[in-house]
Amino acid sequence: MNDHGLRYFEDYVPGATHECGSVSVDEASIIAFAKEFDPQPFHVDPVAAAAGPYRGLIASGWHTCAIVMRLLVDNYLSTEASLGSAGLDELRWPHPVRPGDTLRVRATVVEARRSLSKPDRGIIKTVIEAVNQDGRAVMRATAINFLLVRPEPAR
Amino acid sequence: MNDHGLRYFEDYVPGATHECGSVSVDEASIIAFAKEFDPQPFHVDPVAAAAGPYRGLIASGWHTCAIVMRLLVDNYLSTEASLGSAGLDELRWPHPVRPGDTLRVRATVVEARRSLSKPDRGIIKTVIEAVNQDGRAVMRATAINFLLVRPEPAR
Repeated sequence: MNDHGLRYFEDYVPGATHECGSVSVDEASIIAFAKEFDPQPFHVDPVAAAAGPYRGLIASGWHTCAIVMRLLVDNYLSTEASLGSAGLDELRWPHPVRPGDTLRVRATVVEARRSLSKPDRGIIKTVIEAVNQDGRAVMRATAINFLLVRPEPAR
Repeated sequence: MNDHGLRYFEDYVPGATHECGSVSVDEASIIAFAKEFDPQPFHVDPVAAAAGPYRGLIASGWHTCAIVMRLLVDNYLSTEASLGSAGLDELRWPHPVRPGDTLRVRATVVEARRSLSKPDRGIIKTVIEAVNQDGRAVMRATAINFLLVRPEPAR
């Protein structure tokens, strides 16, 4: 377990930016994901994609979200205190992800408040950004997560 | 290609609801997806999950989105005219997806407007809802999609 795995609600401080590492995306994984979940021509068929609206194969936006999530789990979300997510606001894919791209992921805490109804937890909002090797944003969203507050030490 | 595959922008009429079929989710696929993309204990480890915040294994929200997307591609989005998506607003997972659940997906067009800058296309907004076998909503979002307008017949 990394340090991030032991975080509690109190460790997610509004304004703090967390670098979450990077990941490369290859054509085989783009096609494999899309064949199962999003078999549109520009995600699964390099020949059709070359003649299509993006002039080449691009990753399903859901694939991009999934690989970004992996970096968040490995580098940002607490293993100890994460209670899951209510969802995300303003999820955007401003630029396509193409085979060979390397995506860097950054998480910035924008809000943190204790739950009024459940005193053992808090709610954090995080702006998640993924940029490619040219610095272009390929995904952006504001995630809503629930986390346990730090337990009081036993007396 | 199904009928939906031949739709153009004009065929997405605000107010119209499209039933997109249903899909069942098993434990093996929940664990396989989460091991790759979202390896939090309550998604990958049935024993840890039983003692965790959801009292049992639940699907990654991204897995839910991916299987819902498959039903949208197979039953709603045009093969002929789809130009991809800008993203989604207010993506929510109001209730967990558990092994053995069957999800039914419905798409309701809420907005359709021609692009001002690109006359060959339009923008549609769709409320996507997935409900489980008990009628509980497990996913909801408003998707933003670009579609080609119907070509004028050759003279």
